[in-house]
Amino acid sequence: VKTLLVVGTGLIGGSFALAARRARLFDRILGVDGTEILAHAQRLGIVDGAADDLAAGVGQADVVFVAVPPAVTAAVLADVFRHAPAHPQVVFDGASVKRAVIDELHARFGALPSSFVPAHPMAGSERHGPAAASADLYAGCHVFLTPERETGTDALNCVRSIWEGVGAHVHETGADRHDEMVAVTSHLPHLVAYAYMALIADLSAAPGSDGVHTPPLAQYAGSGFRDFTRIAASDPVLWRQILEANKEQVTTQLDGLAARLARIRELLASDRFDDVQAELERARDAHARFEHVRPSGPRGSVTGGQP
Amino acid sequence: VKTLLVVGTGLIGGSFALAARRARLFDRILGVDGTEILAHAQRLGIVDGAADDLAAGVGQADVVFVAVPPAVTAAVLADVFRHAPAHPQVVFDGASVKRAVIDELHARFGALPSSFVPAHPMAGSERHGPAAASADLYAGCHVFLTPERETGTDALNCVRSIWEGVGAHVHETGADRHDEMVAVTSHLPHLVAYAYMALIADLSAAPGSDGVHTPPLAQYAGSGFRDFTRIAASDPVLWRQILEANKEQVTTQLDGLAARLARIRELLASDRFDDVQAELERARDAHARFEHVRPSGPRGSVTGGQP
Repeated sequence: VKTLLVVGTGLIGGSFALAARRARLFDRILGVDGTEILAHAQRLGIVDGAADDLAAGVGQADVVFVAVPPAVTAAVLADVFRHAPAHPQVVFDGASVKRAVIDELHARFGALPSSFVPAHPMAGSERHGPAAASADLYAGCHVFLTPERETGTDALNCVRSIWEGVGAHVHETGADRHDEMVAVTSHLPHLVAYAYMALIADLSAAPGSDGVHTPPLAQYAGSGFRDFTRIAASDPVLWRQILEANKEQVTTQLDGLAARLARIRELLASDRFDDVQAELERARDAHARFEHVRPSGPRGSVTGGQP
Repeated sequence: VKTLLVVGTGLIGGSFALAARRARLFDRILGVDGTEILAHAQRLGIVDGAADDLAAGVGQADVVFVAVPPAVTAAVLADVFRHAPAHPQVVFDGASVKRAVIDELHARFGALPSSFVPAHPMAGSERHGPAAASADLYAGCHVFLTPERETGTDALNCVRSIWEGVGAHVHETGADRHDEMVAVTSHLPHLVAYAYMALIADLSAAPGSDGVHTPPLAQYAGSGFRDFTRIAASDPVLWRQILEANKEQVTTQLDGLAARLARIRELLASDRFDDVQAELERARDAHARFEHVRPSGPRGSVTGGQP
């Protein structure tokens, strides 16, 4: 009997359990979570049973998926490893920042267990909890595996085939490169959308340049504004954790964007509008290129509300 | 016989002509544009006939709508006024920046004709030309009128009722306040999306931090990235004109955003993550408030590709 243990039965872990069940990847699926959440997950058919606690769950499992918020991922993984010192489980996580998790485990254990495969499924949604789980979440989704030197080949191949089994495209890369990529394509846009929305809030609270206090500025804005700011609806607690975990990469990319904005500002201020236009054309062309090259994924992947 | 002259029969002017025809606001609709575009507009039923030239068109018209790119709006309006020194036409434009147009006319004529009403319909689309014109473009759209001291009450009322006649919500405000508002809600997001896309282009052209040249970063990005960058597909020639015309307001707002990004960067760098979270919460709450207050407009209004 092959058993999966899902630690965290919300959107990420719950969707994985539903997809794995549909694909018949395991004989039994157990869950660990808060009592009420776990009962909910059981009623929804996400898990077959609740483990009494993490130790009991780990003791029965062949494969363990740790799908908890980024800030506690390393701590929960450490508990999993402590409960399974000899058992040859395969363990993987789903945190959206890899280096911080790996470094914390290195600090605790010296080396990673060979059975551990750092993973990040780039899928999400503004919704969360077991009720948001869907067997389709990972169909066509990109999953990054960021193995370290210690990672065993068997564990790596096992995790790869599990994710492929639920319909994902699996990629391998270094943890730093992964974190850089998500900093650029997801964390930076979120940060900018949040900062822009805070600016709008300030301006709307103050009277305009004519001294008149008008209705909120954004009231008249259209679809461009709506799309540009959509990710500012994302969960602040989750995003604080992500920005904290990926602080170095995010500040580096933020500096890059700030320098580019400063350059355009300088071009505007010195009336170099041909150069401004050249910048806009370059950006427009890049956008067209990526629209072309990027396979159309499911709605809500890497830069969605839950990354 | 009441005659409308549309100067510029593309998306903005052509859609207005179609909507005005459907609402039976005029007996006859004439157009002025390049020969081929005008022939196209005539075949599409946008205009009843082509004026031989601007002078001839103005001589026959009761109402003139100047719907040309922002950079040439003031010059075309000046031509209209020169051809109609005595005729009591009502004239309005559709430029997305108002102060620059008004200032240029002040510089040319000393005072604005009382028949002129500066206007900005906040509608658009990534498409353009007569083929993109639609009788529905202005249904539920917000139109700003920015009258000056010289603007006549009759002209103002006339233009207001014409826009209401095609289904728009009409607002009056000062030109500076209007320009500030579009700088914040439309021009700044466009500038940031362009700058971000240019950054992505640079990073994708260079090898990653691990020295490996990977596929374009954006290849794996999801719906958040797609929405955040959509406006970077907008026309660089049009946007160069808009940024040029609204340079002062845009640089002011850009400075405001840059200061806010610098503050968040400082919070991140000094590990003040509670304060980071408070910023994100503030932004998220503002977003929720505007989503609530803003009436759902048609797709593609103020911050669409064609503002």
